[in-house]
Amino acid sequence: MLETLKKEVLTANQELPRLGLVDFTWGNVSGRDPATGSIVIKPSGVPYETMAVGDMVVVDAEGRVIEGRLRPSSDLPTHVELYRHFPSIGGIVHTHSSWATVWAQACRGIPALGTTHADYFYGEIPCTRVLAEAQTADRYEARTGLAIVDRFREDNIDPENMPAVLVANHGPFAWGADASAAVHNAAVLELVARMAMLSLRIAPDLPPMPQHLLDKHFFRKHGPGAYYGQG
Amino acid sequence: MLETLKKEVLTANQELPRLGLVDFTWGNVSGRDPATGSIVIKPSGVPYETMAVGDMVVVDAEGRVIEGRLRPSSDLPTHVELYRHFPSIGGIVHTHSSWATVWAQACRGIPALGTTHADYFYGEIPCTRVLAEAQTADRYEARTGLAIVDRFREDNIDPENMPAVLVANHGPFAWGADASAAVHNAAVLELVARMAMLSLRIAPDLPPMPQHLLDKHFFRKHGPGAYYGQG
Amino acid sequence: MLETLKKEVLTANQELPRLGLVDFTWGNVSGRDPATGSIVIKPSGVPYETMAVGDMVVVDAEGRVIEGRLRPSSDLPTHVELYRHFPSIGGIVHTHSSWATVWAQACRGIPALGTTHADYFYGEIPCTRVLAEAQTADRYEARTGLAIVDRFREDNIDPENMPAVLVANHGPFAWGADASAAVHNAAVLELVARMAMLSLRIAPDLPPMPQHLLDKHFFRKHGPGAYYGQG
Amino acid sequence: MLETLKKEVLTANQELPRLGLVDFTWGNVSGRDPATGSIVIKPSGVPYETMAVGDMVVVDAEGRVIEGRLRPSSDLPTHVELYRHFPSIGGIVHTHSSWATVWAQACRGIPALGTTHADYFYGEIPCTRVLAEAQTADRYEARTGLAIVDRFREDNIDPENMPAVLVANHGPFAWGADASAAVHNAAVLELVARMAMLSLRIAPDLPPMPQHLLDKHFFRKHGPGAYYGQG
Repeated sequence: MLETLKKEVLTANQELPRLGLVDFTWGNVSGRDPATGSIVIKPSGVPYETMAVGDMVVVDAEGRVIEGRLRPSSDLPTHVELYRHFPSIGGIVHTHSSWATVWAQACRGIPALGTTHADYFYGEIPCTRVLAEAQTADRYEARTGLAIVDRFREDNIDPENMPAVLVANHGPFAWGADASAAVHNAAVLELVARMAMLSLRIAPDLPPMPQHLLDKHFFRKHGPGAYYGQG
Repeated sequence: MLETLKKEVLTANQELPRLGLVDFTWGNVSGRDPATGSIVIKPSGVPYETMAVGDMVVVDAEGRVIEGRLRPSSDLPTHVELYRHFPSIGGIVHTHSSWATVWAQACRGIPALGTTHADYFYGEIPCTRVLAEAQTADRYEARTGLAIVDRFREDNIDPENMPAVLVANHGPFAWGADASAAVHNAAVLELVARMAMLSLRIAPDLPPMPQHLLDKHFFRKHGPGAYYGQG
Repeated sequence: MLETLKKEVLTANQELPRLGLVDFTWGNVSGRDPATGSIVIKPSGVPYETMAVGDMVVVDAEGRVIEGRLRPSSDLPTHVELYRHFPSIGGIVHTHSSWATVWAQACRGIPALGTTHADYFYGEIPCTRVLAEAQTADRYEARTGLAIVDRFREDNIDPENMPAVLVANHGPFAWGADASAAVHNAAVLELVARMAMLSLRIAPDLPPMPQHLLDKHFFRKHGPGAYYGQG
Repeated sequence: MLETLKKEVLTANQELPRLGLVDFTWGNVSGRDPATGSIVIKPSGVPYETMAVGDMVVVDAEGRVIEGRLRPSSDLPTHVELYRHFPSIGGIVHTHSSWATVWAQACRGIPALGTTHADYFYGEIPCTRVLAEAQTADRYEARTGLAIVDRFREDNIDPENMPAVLVANHGPFAWGADASAAVHNAAVLELVARMAMLSLRIAPDLPPMPQHLLDKHFFRKHGPGAYYGQG
């Protein structure tokens, strides 16, 4: 079942090492079937090089395995919560990519400092609150997803305009219209995280970029007024 | 038309990923035909790997498309203003290369700290003023070019002795006698930006290099008294 | 003798340059035979590319050469002390890998700042005390091993939960169930060292991650309650 | 003439890009013939990839061209002064390798912080005084060499125990028994420069490593008591 989506999810997972976003097996991509709400996700702890289409795990919208010989990624419950609460997204990726993780470990959001950031992320890339003891004790991975959802509600952030988040003391999640778009956003997040960190070394009191420049760049590429690319 | 220039501009664009100056499609090179003033530029949002000579776009000195099936780079109006106001240059490159962008995001010029810098750039590599709201609202890309020109006029900087600039909150532009020279200058800019940033971490109060050493190195390689290379 | 172990130790040594953990010949891996306590170790100062199974040196539990044409690594006495005092380990690796060495040179332990760290190291990765003059004058390499053992005793650290250490002004040692596991831990140490350093640049007063999150991640992968991977 | 030395010098020059020590044509290696004092050096501004044995330039001990179709490296007079004043050395390399240059631009010597440093450099790697105007006005490249010699005399540094130096606002020179050893020392210098810079970010007030540990490591590899390697 869902053979096309399985291939997309496999390809998106294999992009992770190629883009330098993962070491060892530390990352996972999933995709959602818009018709049924079923989710295809990478199996847990399997190397990217030897992974095959048949290793992909299919689960329902609640995360129950429908098809697959292997255990799904241990982060599956986080994906499930994000799909549930962010209905417009079709693909999710989680990595420990270095520069985004450096910010996540610092428990800080990434301020919008330049047009590279503004082309993809409409404002500061948020960082969740540090998980309390009760949140790690019971259904930890699901509660990680809920902590993300809470953070977006708290500041009224639209996940379509902000396709990434940092989980405090952990690492990034990114998403998009499909698995491939999610991985592209994760790659851009990594570049943006690196440049923001370094700009702040040069100018520690640097304010965010002006709102008018953020608007200009984000809406030059996104929404009805976009004019970037071949249209 | 302009088949030789198209090939040069294509080759110069393809150098960008090879030199590590671009990620994805984020960079564009143009070249100017000295006879007619026509400009050849990369199309918008097309991958470097699959780009062909026939994808290059030819525009007149005002930026109007003369030949080409594809939209020109959205940064074309910036190139047009630079060619108009800096008549001696024959090639321009814009990238979001990391280290130069880190300085651009910090809204700081790159001080001349060593002979690597002095061999190519005669003094601090300037950063434009942050664009005001009115400048982004109307003909944003052209006004980016004009902000560069203003910055050079303000400090009376000669674009032949200073073949690069940082656009605040954005990234670098570099230029040269032709498209290939522009790309070489962009590559050196990246190295110089990185080393300046790191030297200032070791010695935060570091002054610029002595003027006599800057003069010595720049004029050892440029102008009538040059004696570097095979002459 | 011990041909299988020799192959394992050779392979583990050859992994070091592939993983970017060594420059030139600066690193060595050993493995211990559980039946006899004999140790197989890399010869001193031999390039990884040309190293062969027959170059491996076999020594007894006291470090006396039993078999081999070449001198063992000059760090052998450190390995011997670690095997003697940490009976559960079966492989040891020493490198001058950059990021771990940067912390060792700073004479600081690496604080646990995120889940990447917590998946492998149960708490701060310790740094030994700086060796006193008497410790370098007599049997320096053995005393390096004893300084590690002292540091673990001092804070009552279990080497099974903490498979790495930094030797002050020197570099890292890592270990594991066998030579291959030791090298994997050394590679993770390098990633963790890099990210910790950079997170602290963003947030200099950053506290360690919460204990409950450290517990959750370490014991999700280690010990009887583990549920990560394919089980 | 000197065909063997020419091949050695060519090979050593070609090692520079392979080791990541040069960009473009920015580096040069020379070797000295012990019998005649003649020097073989890279030609100025020629790419490493296309360089051939016949492009090497032979000069006498005063730097006058004896053989060769091409101009010698513009840094030749610096090499000549170093060979004249440091009679024990047989090869010299100059690069703008990033991390060593970062320290040179900061006008600071590289403190000895760890055993990687101590295995090659017996103490702080010195940085010359900034060249005065008169020194750049007349025979600049020769005076660069003399500034190095002065710096070694000033602190009574033995060039056999300290095979590298930083020229202020410029970059590193390294040397050794022959051209190949000089390049190896330049590569180690780069690693040591990087790690020292980063250790000082973690611990800004870090003192140099203890003298007894510096002695132990340097003399474990150099001089009559050495016991590292295959002997």
